[in-house]
Amino acid sequence: MRFVAKDPDYEGRVRDSFARQTLMSTMGVTMEELGPGTCTLAMDYRRDLCQQHGYHHAGTTTALADSAAGYAAYSLMPPGSSLLTVEYKINLMAPAAGERFLARATVERAGRTITVVRSEVFAIKGGEEKAIAFMLATMMCLADTPDA
Amino acid sequence: MRFVAKDPDYEGRVRDSFARQTLMSTMGVTMEELGPGTCTLAMDYRRDLCQQHGYHHAGTTTALADSAAGYAAYSLMPPGSSLLTVEYKINLMAPAAGERFLARATVERAGRTITVVRSEVFAIKGGEEKAIAFMLATMMCLADTPDA
Amino acid sequence: MRFVAKDPDYEGRVRDSFARQTLMSTMGVTMEELGPGTCTLAMDYRRDLCQQHGYHHAGTTTALADSAAGYAAYSLMPPGSSLLTVEYKINLMAPAAGERFLARATVERAGRTITVVRSEVFAIKGGEEKAIAFMLATMMCLADTPDA
Amino acid sequence: MRFVAKDPDYEGRVRDSFARQTLMSTMGVTMEELGPGTCTLAMDYRRDLCQQHGYHHAGTTTALADSAAGYAAYSLMPPGSSLLTVEYKINLMAPAAGERFLARATVERAGRTITVVRSEVFAIKGGEEKAIAFMLATMMCLADTPDA
Repeated sequence: MRFVAKDPDYEGRVRDSFARQTLMSTMGVTMEELGPGTCTLAMDYRRDLCQQHGYHHAGTTTALADSAAGYAAYSLMPPGSSLLTVEYKINLMAPAAGERFLARATVERAGRTITVVRSEVFAIKGGEEKAIAFMLATMMCLADTPDA
Repeated sequence: MRFVAKDPDYEGRVRDSFARQTLMSTMGVTMEELGPGTCTLAMDYRRDLCQQHGYHHAGTTTALADSAAGYAAYSLMPPGSSLLTVEYKINLMAPAAGERFLARATVERAGRTITVVRSEVFAIKGGEEKAIAFMLATMMCLADTPDA
Repeated sequence: MRFVAKDPDYEGRVRDSFARQTLMSTMGVTMEELGPGTCTLAMDYRRDLCQQHGYHHAGTTTALADSAAGYAAYSLMPPGSSLLTVEYKINLMAPAAGERFLARATVERAGRTITVVRSEVFAIKGGEEKAIAFMLATMMCLADTPDA
Repeated sequence: MRFVAKDPDYEGRVRDSFARQTLMSTMGVTMEELGPGTCTLAMDYRRDLCQQHGYHHAGTTTALADSAAGYAAYSLMPPGSSLLTVEYKINLMAPAAGERFLARATVERAGRTITVVRSEVFAIKGGEEKAIAFMLATMMCLADTPDA
């Protein structure tokens, strides 16, 4: 599946929106990759964002996966549009144990209003990457509603 | 639907687990109510946990809803057990705009292994409460696996 | 939560759409109740719609729940509109064992484009009703797209 | 991701369970492929399983996707076990318009109790295949509970 961005400056638009999300900076998340319909976000392990066993909380994993999904979708939307997360579902497949975490999102279907995105989270531990979560998300495009 | 706790000290067990979740203290979440199969968590608006428009990020709302769901489920589990979040789905129904946020969770079905929980998030703005998110979550009981 | 129908003839519009769904007649489903934002569908046990243990297949339970959800949402949409199921999630909480099955759907949030609906399925066995499934669905309104 | 079947006769066990699902024969579904952790099911267009516009009903698409997901999961379970569908979420990405439909399921994570499966549905129309639905499902293994 290959997508073509409708907005030649999709990258500037996405990175600008990302920079304004305080949750991303609070969590120390960086954007590692961005393409038409794809986005990879990364963060280091953070002891202050954990559940009771010292692994990343499901909410931390979800925030990472959701943001990657949102930016993968937003990359395909037209200039002057805004993005809404309608809903998502996530399976937490293994404990979020590792030194670093990546969320890789890919658009599955880009519609005029609704975009469906898959976002997978991986934990890196001792150099090995393990899939720990699988998200399926529904995003909505608000046309003629500039993001800022 | 009324549930009876199997563990007479379910409250101590739940509050102890809650106290060990660093994400909850990082987010400033407090436990407002706990009963057999129900839990309410609350937090104030936090400018550092927002998306690009200054509302709480979907990940923030989800972390609140998920934790309430988890503790509602955990209240019904036997002593010496541990809780796993298998998966959840959440609909973000309105912007998370408000001064304060509540997640109210209720167990829908408590099984030996699998517990299904509904968790609803409300924003309080100018004294009015508005439903902003609806989560349906699947939790799993690990018997004979003490939480700490 | 109380909703007001925008279409004074919502009932005619919904029942007309229901009558054109061949899956509903194939399954022997009837509409038991319809109001602004609510719908109840019912069907008898059908040996030819089962899984390997002789209970209704998850697909059968889902089709019943989805249709009730769709009509609860469609009751609130304006005349001349059409309905799309964007997605849903369903927890199968107990075996679909019984003589008769009911799906009761209620709109949780009605937006101009997106409507969120909860749909619960109950099995009736020996006169007793038991909750067997819980669905959370996202429906979309296509304005100015008559249904037929 | 490659899985190894724990049961050397997984194929006989799966096909036997499939043959006992009356919904599958009622819908005219056939098993096209089965491997350790994968399953493909197929069916022709059926006018009697449609929604109001003459396309396959979401419930029909879901039943196909769910069954493929279940058998992909069941292929990896040990002899003498039984399978339960805990829950699933499905995005209906395009109308189910076509002459034939395929559901291709792949296990994403196989645990002792919980298995997570992805199942994608494709419509074939005029020789072209189009993705119409994406399901993410949670299956549960009941050990020492023979399926028949």
